[in-house]
Amino acid sequence: MFRAIVSSPINVLLLAAPISWILAATAPESSWVFVSAAASLIPLAGLIGLGTEQLARRAGPALGGFLNATFGNAAELIIAVVALRNGHIELVKASITGSIIGNLLLVLGLSFFAGGLGRRTQKFHRTSATNTSAMLFLGVVALVMPAVFDLSIYGNLKAHPPALDRLSFWSALILIGAYGGSLVYAFTAHHDLFRPSQNAAHDGPAFSTGAAVAVLATGTLLTTVQAEILVRAMAPALARFGFTELFVGVIVIALIGNAAEHYSAVTAAMRDDMTLAVEIAVGSSAQIALFVAPALVLYSFAIGRPMSLLFNAFEIVAIALSVISTTHVIADGESNWVEGLQLLSIYLILALAFYFVPA
Amino acid sequence: MFRAIVSSPINVLLLAAPISWILAATAPESSWVFVSAAASLIPLAGLIGLGTEQLARRAGPALGGFLNATFGNAAELIIAVVALRNGHIELVKASITGSIIGNLLLVLGLSFFAGGLGRRTQKFHRTSATNTSAMLFLGVVALVMPAVFDLSIYGNLKAHPPALDRLSFWSALILIGAYGGSLVYAFTAHHDLFRPSQNAAHDGPAFSTGAAVAVLATGTLLTTVQAEILVRAMAPALARFGFTELFVGVIVIALIGNAAEHYSAVTAAMRDDMTLAVEIAVGSSAQIALFVAPALVLYSFAIGRPMSLLFNAFEIVAIALSVISTTHVIADGESNWVEGLQLLSIYLILALAFYFVPA
Amino acid sequence: MFRAIVSSPINVLLLAAPISWILAATAPESSWVFVSAAASLIPLAGLIGLGTEQLARRAGPALGGFLNATFGNAAELIIAVVALRNGHIELVKASITGSIIGNLLLVLGLSFFAGGLGRRTQKFHRTSATNTSAMLFLGVVALVMPAVFDLSIYGNLKAHPPALDRLSFWSALILIGAYGGSLVYAFTAHHDLFRPSQNAAHDGPAFSTGAAVAVLATGTLLTTVQAEILVRAMAPALARFGFTELFVGVIVIALIGNAAEHYSAVTAAMRDDMTLAVEIAVGSSAQIALFVAPALVLYSFAIGRPMSLLFNAFEIVAIALSVISTTHVIADGESNWVEGLQLLSIYLILALAFYFVPA
Repeated sequence: MFRAIVSSPINVLLLAAPISWILAATAPESSWVFVSAAASLIPLAGLIGLGTEQLARRAGPALGGFLNATFGNAAELIIAVVALRNGHIELVKASITGSIIGNLLLVLGLSFFAGGLGRRTQKFHRTSATNTSAMLFLGVVALVMPAVFDLSIYGNLKAHPPALDRLSFWSALILIGAYGGSLVYAFTAHHDLFRPSQNAAHDGPAFSTGAAVAVLATGTLLTTVQAEILVRAMAPALARFGFTELFVGVIVIALIGNAAEHYSAVTAAMRDDMTLAVEIAVGSSAQIALFVAPALVLYSFAIGRPMSLLFNAFEIVAIALSVISTTHVIADGESNWVEGLQLLSIYLILALAFYFVPA
Repeated sequence: MFRAIVSSPINVLLLAAPISWILAATAPESSWVFVSAAASLIPLAGLIGLGTEQLARRAGPALGGFLNATFGNAAELIIAVVALRNGHIELVKASITGSIIGNLLLVLGLSFFAGGLGRRTQKFHRTSATNTSAMLFLGVVALVMPAVFDLSIYGNLKAHPPALDRLSFWSALILIGAYGGSLVYAFTAHHDLFRPSQNAAHDGPAFSTGAAVAVLATGTLLTTVQAEILVRAMAPALARFGFTELFVGVIVIALIGNAAEHYSAVTAAMRDDMTLAVEIAVGSSAQIALFVAPALVLYSFAIGRPMSLLFNAFEIVAIALSVISTTHVIADGESNWVEGLQLLSIYLILALAFYFVPA
Repeated sequence: MFRAIVSSPINVLLLAAPISWILAATAPESSWVFVSAAASLIPLAGLIGLGTEQLARRAGPALGGFLNATFGNAAELIIAVVALRNGHIELVKASITGSIIGNLLLVLGLSFFAGGLGRRTQKFHRTSATNTSAMLFLGVVALVMPAVFDLSIYGNLKAHPPALDRLSFWSALILIGAYGGSLVYAFTAHHDLFRPSQNAAHDGPAFSTGAAVAVLATGTLLTTVQAEILVRAMAPALARFGFTELFVGVIVIALIGNAAEHYSAVTAAMRDDMTLAVEIAVGSSAQIALFVAPALVLYSFAIGRPMSLLFNAFEIVAIALSVISTTHVIADGESNWVEGLQLLSIYLILALAFYFVPA
């Protein structure tokens, strides 16, 4: 177990965790608290993934697949829960947006680009990609309708009538139901929609169940602690770097949370397993939209600080355009590096626009 | 002929027609007038379909196909004409919206779901689906541009300059021309775009031409009468159930008008004839957008109460997202029950949003 | 060389050039100056194309392909540069919009229609079409985000904060970078993305390098002169025909600039080379979005009269709907005349809407 953790070079960033503790104690106003906490979260997301995969291997295919699917975006979920508890609703929404567009454009774009270099085209399995596209469109509808509600009735996105919370609450239930259905289909049809992380783990050595639980528990606990430090240290960092909460959520938090997906997808693409790369990128987006986002809405209602599914205009347009572009690009089951370059360029332009939005 | 009518269990709802007459005479303020009139319209839509199919069988393939295509949404058309004559323009637009999204999401979603249970995937013919997609996108453009006109020039959707009526009038002519072209293509290329209802009828016994005309005439007449009762009894029903005219148009009227499509498409899907199911659902949507809607616009100009193609923001977004989602999902020529579940979930979220719109 | 120019019947319109000079000198306020200058630009666009192709044949495949790709929309670029220097920023944006939607809907629609008559379906190569789709979606994102920026922060499309210029400037660089990448891919993968005009030229006789340079130089010079006359004579023509600058840019200028594409694509479609027709239409749109538009933005910054990528609501919706519709219709690699009719109908409705926009 220890060897598995040490063998991954990215885990050197775990050292950023104690650094963030010292800094938080000695120089709480320093922007380095934020930076070190952010750095430490990158390997922690991988650690949760490692624990989940190991537990999944012990648990048999059905329960294992369920574990992998549920904990696939555990780090994003934990960071968002901590931010929600601290009242940073806009940051949570921004990080949901960032995770969706980051997976669709940056993870997939890098995979197409890195995998396509030196090859003319790469092929992948279309069916699972199209299945996931249907999920993504469902997510878009759920995230767009509250804004349409506000815009068409109140003429702006500032109003917050009770109907908006009820629409969000019921939409969240429908999304989770549809996500549950897709899990059932994946397992009963032996359809490999949610296979990704499981596969990646089959290379390494197997842990004992106790060790797997220990890794998972430690990863989850540390992620919670570091997320708490990150969120509390955000104000000085925003001032120092001139970032808005929107930009940090959409770009920075999403990059941290998706680091594991980046690594798995790009390495899969480079060994020409583009089916796996597409599944990781598109499947992870769909999971954010149909499971993480609605779970956060339900959690927010449970703790009495309701978060609606009302996103701002930038977020909605960015999500809608990412979904439409990406589902179109993957519909033919073929990719090449220049398609990757186009997706990366779309991401860059969206990131620029988010950067220029004033606070 | 009588046997054909009695053999279909849904036709027991025809008894709701005399009930609605008695209620309309004795308790005109009761919401049960609306309910019974609505119930009676479900089998009447089927009756018009039966008469049309029988006439079409006598008329030879070309004229028969034309009859089927033209009368395919006759019940929707009659209800809308009655509502238009009574000045319920918003109800008409809502029922157009509801028919388009209902066919694309609910009829197709139920077909994918019911047909896909117990099967891994179902395949269908892609070409006719893609052809019809081009028609749907044309419909979206025609329905979206008036709203863009209003929004970009006046900043809201309340303005109604004369240019809007002229844009709607000419757009309606273009739509009908394009629809006519697609009929010509369907018949000359022996392309089975508009075959659905014809097929379904080949099982039963043939009527004489006189009997077919009699069924068609009776169905049309009764539909007109019941639509008149429905529209006049709407006010007390809205008050009783807490529905808005928008919700009744988008959800209730559309469900009534599409009941026949639901039945045909779902039974086709369950016997694994998914090509027919997709043709019914998507073809019916395209017919609403390219024939029924523009015909209503032209009729409204003819009776001197012009109805423009200016839809509200909910309707436009719902139509656009339905068309984009569905055309994408059907592009690969394969379906399964989980894709059906996603389409049904999209429908549910849209229905929820329409439900929450205040009067 | 002379024979090549005389052999094309459209070149009789070159005579409109001296007519425009005489009119500009004798009756500068006549709307015929505009009409004759416009007419003369149609063959001039073809002349630049001829010179480029001839030079490309001498230059070897790599450099030749680059020449063809870069000069493919030279006439549009020259007209836009002249309009920009004369301060007609809205005209430039409108002509960019018109070129994109004109190629996607009118050129492709006419090709599908004319090529499809008398044939059941025509097939074309899907991969290059999908590659170019990714470029088009990138273009849509770049053209949409400035408007989202304005709308969501200022509530209208009138504001022009400095961030908008910076966003446009960097977006332009990203677009050109992505376009450069697609050229590299096209040449290294021997992928025939930008082959169109080259092919068309292989029929005729070869010019000497000197003659090719002479034709190219003369075409470019005359196009500049005629564009200057056109732009200066626009005011009386607008008044005479009741057109707005928006309509002239979107419809008239775009028709002139795309005349060569129309001719090549439709003739290719009629001899059943639909792959070439799609490449010309879709490739030319992509080039406008990813090369011509950003080049104009950079040029506008260079001359100190910054033009942003902020388009009006009509233009954005027209571009977005054209791209979504067309990429969907070409995704299956098949066309027929009725799909062409639908695309032409979409173009007609958009043109109508642009016509009705008040000045």
